[in-house]
Amino acid sequence: MPRHPRLDPLADRYAARTHGMKTSEIRALFSVVSRPEVVSLAGGMPAVTALPLDAVGSMIGELVSGMGAQTLQYGSGQGDPRLRERICDVMALEGITDASPSEVVVTVGSQQGLDLVTRVFCDPGDVILAEGPSYVGALGVFQAAEARVRHVPMDDDGLIPEALEQALLECRANGDRVKFLYTVPNFHNPAGVTLSEPRRQAIVDIADRYDLLVIEDNPYGLLGFDHEPMRALRARDNQRVIYLGSFSKTFSPGLRVGWVLAPLAVREKLVLATEAQVLCPPSLTQYAVARYLDTQPWREQIKLFTELYRERRDATLESLDALMPPGTTWTRPDGGFYVWLKLPNGLDSKLMQPRAVGAHVAYVPGIGFYADGSGREYMRLSYCYPEPDQIREGVRRLARVIEAELDLHSTFDAVDTGTFRAVGRPGATAEPIVGPATSDRIED
Amino acid sequence: MPRHPRLDPLADRYAARTHGMKTSEIRALFSVVSRPEVVSLAGGMPAVTALPLDAVGSMIGELVSGMGAQTLQYGSGQGDPRLRERICDVMALEGITDASPSEVVVTVGSQQGLDLVTRVFCDPGDVILAEGPSYVGALGVFQAAEARVRHVPMDDDGLIPEALEQALLECRANGDRVKFLYTVPNFHNPAGVTLSEPRRQAIVDIADRYDLLVIEDNPYGLLGFDHEPMRALRARDNQRVIYLGSFSKTFSPGLRVGWVLAPLAVREKLVLATEAQVLCPPSLTQYAVARYLDTQPWREQIKLFTELYRERRDATLESLDALMPPGTTWTRPDGGFYVWLKLPNGLDSKLMQPRAVGAHVAYVPGIGFYADGSGREYMRLSYCYPEPDQIREGVRRLARVIEAELDLHSTFDAVDTGTFRAVGRPGATAEPIVGPATSDRIED
Ligand SMILES: Cc1ncc(COP(=O)(O)O)c(C=O)c1O
Ligand SMILES: Cc1ncc(COP(=O)(O)O)c(C=O)c1O
Repeated sequence: MPRHPRLDPLADRYAARTHGMKTSEIRALFSVVSRPEVVSLAGGMPAVTALPLDAVGSMIGELVSGMGAQTLQYGSGQGDPRLRERICDVMALEGITDASPSEVVVTVGSQQGLDLVTRVFCDPGDVILAEGPSYVGALGVFQAAEARVRHVPMDDDGLIPEALEQALLECRANGDRVKFLYTVPNFHNPAGVTLSEPRRQAIVDIADRYDLLVIEDNPYGLLGFDHEPMRALRARDNQRVIYLGSFSKTFSPGLRVGWVLAPLAVREKLVLATEAQVLCPPSLTQYAVARYLDTQPWREQIKLFTELYRERRDATLESLDALMPPGTTWTRPDGGFYVWLKLPNGLDSKLMQPRAVGAHVAYVPGIGFYADGSGREYMRLSYCYPEPDQIREGVRRLARVIEAELDLHSTFDAVDTGTFRAVGRPGATAEPIVGPATSDRIED
Repeated sequence: MPRHPRLDPLADRYAARTHGMKTSEIRALFSVVSRPEVVSLAGGMPAVTALPLDAVGSMIGELVSGMGAQTLQYGSGQGDPRLRERICDVMALEGITDASPSEVVVTVGSQQGLDLVTRVFCDPGDVILAEGPSYVGALGVFQAAEARVRHVPMDDDGLIPEALEQALLECRANGDRVKFLYTVPNFHNPAGVTLSEPRRQAIVDIADRYDLLVIEDNPYGLLGFDHEPMRALRARDNQRVIYLGSFSKTFSPGLRVGWVLAPLAVREKLVLATEAQVLCPPSLTQYAVARYLDTQPWREQIKLFTELYRERRDATLESLDALMPPGTTWTRPDGGFYVWLKLPNGLDSKLMQPRAVGAHVAYVPGIGFYADGSGREYMRLSYCYPEPDQIREGVRRLARVIEAELDLHSTFDAVDTGTFRAVGRPGATAEPIVGPATSDRIED
């Protein structure tokens, strides 16, 4: 079994893009977090058991028995028309009222949407602007496309418009071909922050001034704890913003149903790309989502989910407040799944990981969320999946691990006790453009 | 609505690969073949209504009600381990007895498997050897990867080994980087022919001598009418052959469950590629297939399918024998879905299409199955979906259209009445390498 590149007889035959692929920090953790004694604050798995499983089961069973000729058959590459209509209804909740089903492409999760958009636009060497930190799955897509990622800093109000403009100017000066800005405006993964209302307009204005395409990735937009969904970027600009949506967090990720909303010319390219990739999305799962939206109380279910996640968020923040040693800071999400935590000066979340696993708590080290290997002082904590008591126990264990690390490093003197502000690297308005890593290792 | 490239404000922003993408001959037909008055011999849709829909429906319903925590949740990128075990059982029917579930990657149909393999191996400009004609979906994948396709001729016994060797020598002389041979050995789409037993060994021997990777795409292998499944190429060489399988034709295409079997080092790259593309295949559909294989009489169901397809094949061949004008020739499939028909000299299946649609019969023009625009004298007839009576009516209409075309062209004198042999273009042992088309049109 060839596990070392020297032993892979095909090692010299892969495409250039393949050499840059590596196991994500999240998958590397998989064997750890599935051990029952470990409290996992690592994964982003939604609480699907809060769904009415019996009702959903008989609904799907009936779809197969009654409509097998459709649900078990090939469908259109663009996706089921009825589902695309219902998707427009869902987007209306975020102020997108002008979307037509013909502009929607159904995808195998929004992950595939991200991949399609990237494939349609990016040649090797093209530059993508993305928040620092960014969703790890997006970085994987960009790396597979051999695009270069330039991180743009965020703070508690999300992406910083001035930093975006700065980045654009620098790219222009360098002659870089910027293909788009990739942004997660709501309840950011992993940062847990939300783009403020004034900044939304500022970002759209910048996009307009710089002729910048924006990919708005929004799986969490309906999962806010405190207020109505915010108006999407796409609701402010229907030509420059391509919107990605997903039913993974509002219904079920195991169905893998997401979508892209794009201007017609782009939509046509996306359909061709998805046909080459998967022919068409699964029919059964699309019918399941459409029927669910048609017949089940899905808005109430989202409310139920958010209540549950709010409780878990509260358990997380209360425990962090009570237990974390000074110098540790974190974001305070008002929706979604994630808290972004900054360790006291000098600590490294990746190096600390074995100790944390030994103490039976798991998180995702921050470096997974940067294309340039930075982020070692950060970690992502997910509160979506464990029960509040487990969360409290997990945070307790984590606090002890951090304390022990502090002891070990004897860095008590140097601790920065200021409050957390910028989740981007401090002073990092002019970040270098970093290409995909070129590690050639076969990882386990 | 920008329908002309001049009106697409993003026209100058797409990736190079996007400019080559175009609507397939099959999708272009979609609006036509769905009209009820048209007999469609165009599509490749399996006869899913021959499934026990009630049993499958309640099986899937119970999977959701009873195992929602798994079936509605994210799964592993490589695919459900239980399903991967059952996939190994299925492959054993074709003589693949050494496959381990760890070498299997579950994909969103074998289309995604094809895309993943291509992405992992091919850089722009690399050469792929493929039968002439080849599966249209494979050509779409190769074009999206900006690979160059070199067709290798076939005859009634499938791919011609001498022609393969010739192609390899020519590529070597040209300094072309040949990444793999793509082949459909059983009941070829669209040619309807099967690679003979001696040729299987010859191909594997050539692969060994020339250090050639072989992608064996085998969705139809279990759908033979006359004999037991033939031994797969992969059963003869487990290092050089990457095998693609699918449940689309033996169970249901609407579930989009296929797989790749590859040596471990390649498997690892494929998992990374699929994680970047879709995170993981849908859980529900994977559980559905695994449960189906565990609890339903799937071998008997395949027998039932083949009986049904055999009847339709018979209806097709009998009608063709009875009705086609001299000079028309066709293959005689002993399994699968397709007959490959060659028109009398001088006729062009693409030009003839409007007349055929007017006569309410649809087929797929041959040019869709070549990367170089050749194949105009051929068409693909699918007998998988229509009932025998419809097939007879469709062939009757088609015969009349061909006769009318012959009248029109007054080519009766020049008609070649020899029997059909080679499905490759006659005398075409040294085919030119053709790159992807670079049409920039937005097609409807
Ligand atoms: C920001 C973001 N985008 C996209 C995805 C992919 O979601 P899916 O493919 O399940 O729709 C996720 C999943 O965690 C995410 O957090
Ligand atoms: C030769 C061949 N390969 C692959 C496919 C794709 O099948 P699926 O993606 O449904 O498994 C098809 C479908 O018609 C085919 O004929």
